[in-house]
Amino acid sequence: MEVGTGSNEKIGFSPWWPFLGSLVEKLRGRVTGFLNKLKKIAKDDPRRIAHSCKVGLALTLVSFSYYVTPLFDGFGVSAIWAVLTVVVVMEYTVGATLSKGLNRAFATLLAAFLGVGAHQIAILFGEKGEPILLGLFVFILAAAATFSRFIPEIKARYDYGVSIFILTFSLVAVSSYRAEELIQLAHQRLSTIVIGVVTCLCTTIFVIPVWAGEDLHKLAAVNLDKLASFLEGLGSECLGEKVGSESLEGKPFLQVHKSVLNSKPTEDSLCNFARWEPGHGRFRFRHPWKQYLKIGALNRRCASSMEALTTYITTSAETQATKEPELRQKIRTACLEMSSESAKALRELSKAIRTMTAPASANPHMAAAIAATGELRSTLSKDADIADVLHVATIATLVAELVVRTQEIFGSVEELARLARFKSPEPIPKATVKPVSDGESPPHVAIQVGE
Amino acid sequence: MEVGTGSNEKIGFSPWWPFLGSLVEKLRGRVTGFLNKLKKIAKDDPRRIAHSCKVGLALTLVSFSYYVTPLFDGFGVSAIWAVLTVVVVMEYTVGATLSKGLNRAFATLLAAFLGVGAHQIAILFGEKGEPILLGLFVFILAAAATFSRFIPEIKARYDYGVSIFILTFSLVAVSSYRAEELIQLAHQRLSTIVIGVVTCLCTTIFVIPVWAGEDLHKLAAVNLDKLASFLEGLGSECLGEKVGSESLEGKPFLQVHKSVLNSKPTEDSLCNFARWEPGHGRFRFRHPWKQYLKIGALNRRCASSMEALTTYITTSAETQATKEPELRQKIRTACLEMSSESAKALRELSKAIRTMTAPASANPHMAAAIAATGELRSTLSKDADIADVLHVATIATLVAELVVRTQEIFGSVEELARLARFKSPEPIPKATVKPVSDGESPPHVAIQVGE
Repeated sequence: MEVGTGSNEKIGFSPWWPFLGSLVEKLRGRVTGFLNKLKKIAKDDPRRIAHSCKVGLALTLVSFSYYVTPLFDGFGVSAIWAVLTVVVVMEYTVGATLSKGLNRAFATLLAAFLGVGAHQIAILFGEKGEPILLGLFVFILAAAATFSRFIPEIKARYDYGVSIFILTFSLVAVSSYRAEELIQLAHQRLSTIVIGVVTCLCTTIFVIPVWAGEDLHKLAAVNLDKLASFLEGLGSECLGEKVGSESLEGKPFLQVHKSVLNSKPTEDSLCNFARWEPGHGRFRFRHPWKQYLKIGALNRRCASSMEALTTYITTSAETQATKEPELRQKIRTACLEMSSESAKALRELSKAIRTMTAPASANPHMAAAIAATGELRSTLSKDADIADVLHVATIATLVAELVVRTQEIFGSVEELARLARFKSPEPIPKATVKPVSDGESPPHVAIQVGE
Repeated sequence: MEVGTGSNEKIGFSPWWPFLGSLVEKLRGRVTGFLNKLKKIAKDDPRRIAHSCKVGLALTLVSFSYYVTPLFDGFGVSAIWAVLTVVVVMEYTVGATLSKGLNRAFATLLAAFLGVGAHQIAILFGEKGEPILLGLFVFILAAAATFSRFIPEIKARYDYGVSIFILTFSLVAVSSYRAEELIQLAHQRLSTIVIGVVTCLCTTIFVIPVWAGEDLHKLAAVNLDKLASFLEGLGSECLGEKVGSESLEGKPFLQVHKSVLNSKPTEDSLCNFARWEPGHGRFRFRHPWKQYLKIGALNRRCASSMEALTTYITTSAETQATKEPELRQKIRTACLEMSSESAKALRELSKAIRTMTAPASANPHMAAAIAATGELRSTLSKDADIADVLHVATIATLVAELVVRTQEIFGSVEELARLARFKSPEPIPKATVKPVSDGESPPHVAIQVGE
């Protein structure tokens, strides 16, 4: 019975059977892959499972206000607004939930007042004038509020509130045209929204809370550690004694700084939420959250310099050392000293943040690294021949790198032109390729012009 | 009558009068500042005003389905769901609106089906069992759906849909316990949501549409232009003939590339929305939008190299040239050639994207830049003395920059420790500062250890 093994070579007496088998096999592979992915997501941050259960819990809690008859009689059909609020307000971190909940509550309150006011004005204009005036009010307020969302400060902190403001104002203004007991309706809705917000807050704060502030704090320490790992790897794999001629490309330490480069959006949103959070654990209410953004910006700048260094050491080959071995050795020693001491300083800074201790222990390492820089400079400036040329040659090296970058961009734009079928230029440019003057230089250029 | 001039020196006969005057003055300043800000926001992108009006228009249109009696009789109170849909779905770009609208419509449909199914199962368990079973269903589906939002692919494209799915399922499951005519209610709601989505789509697509794809396309060209401006500035201000000893810090061309560095989130969201958009103008439906992300990543890498160069030329002073003027001149010329030709190539690439023409016209410039790089390499490798040391000295220069970066981070962490009142470390470390070996080197180190 070799049926259903999924092997493609054997075709049994029933030709569709192996096909079905391989299909099942494929499907099973897909499902296993998907389950492994889910497992990984859960393992990376187990609080995600907790959060999912918390959302379920809050929703079930709030549903009970609907099932339990005495509560239902008090709120009427408005009880479903509590459900709606929970779904929309419940967020991963305490700060985000607080920000959304407060935004929602205050925006609803303000919009309900204005909506009732608009209704009072509109009814003065009679049955025919009322809908026209209400429509006008909705248009003006919605347009103005939408425009205010383009102001960066409002976008950052009150975007959700403005959206709820438009929503509630329109709802109140529109339903005021039909509803008989507007005030009672508004009151019911507001209380159900408050119930929803309070349920969310209790669940996020008291059941395994995730604090945006704490995450921001830890992220700063983790990023410092990543920068330190890069410098440690640089010391051992690139500047150390036993470094061979093997290619550095693909070494893991050359990748660690990359995630730091893209940390800005995460840090911005965490900081934004952290400012809404009350004091918790080791953090006071007015903890200087904005300082983490400053540290983050400097971390990214450091990672950016690491990127430049990475490109340089992976692309430019070392020439065979024949002359001046002493000077080379001196420079190498200084490099090793600078990178290892900086790495130690970064590790100490990370530890200082983790333990919330003043970073005094980083001082000696920092001083040693700076001293090594000074020594390096004096070493280089002693040899006038080299010092003269070095400055301009370094700039040239960096500019040459920009040429390589530009070439890469050129390639990707060409690919875009091919994929998107850009039209070909009308007059084909007659370009003369400037030949490399002598045959010595290694990187020969082969570019087709006017293709 | 010197009253109300707001001058602080003169105190008139009525002491609160000038105070009030200065208050009014201050307030007026604030208001003027705010109005100017609004004007700038509108001027930067006039489509923002159009968008605000479009939101007002869509809301007013949809409100009329409520005011007009025959329509109202068809939909009942559910008509307010059309208003709700418009507020939530209407976005700045066509792609974002389409993405939200389709997400909302399909998620509502799916969740309504499942909700009705859950209700059918729950009623089998009698009056007491029903709310318990419904609560359980809500818990399980809400938790599972919330967890699915942590999967990056779902987060990127269907986040809003999942949230609406949870919302609708809970609403249907919860209200099914009370509502008599569930199917009719579901039908009404679905049609009002469709009305809302269609209103939004018509307004965004037919009234001054803002296409995410077009914005993404333009952004790529603008960023290429910025990179070109940097290289042009570099050529004229730093490598040109008449460059004096004036400091380069604060020159505008050293800032243009910075906005490119932070373009990733904008590009990601625009690309995400562009994929939902139908063909429009010069773009087909399956335009290769992902290629723009590749170009963007390379642009950022180029900007990152520019950042490294910027830091180098603003911090390291040029030594007074005494020896080898010829070699220096050769290197300088090569630099000038590399940067100006790369700049021209980038300008051509930008033009190619703007006009959607194949970028053949960038070829000669690219070839010239690469040829200059080759010449530079051969120039440098001719002088064995320098070539020997240059490689390791360049690495040393880049590592020395990392020390400076680390020092900056150190300073900002220290500031954090001060602001957040970190505790002082218990055993004060006794560190010996390694003194700079000789008095020649310019950057003297003054770090207090064990403070």
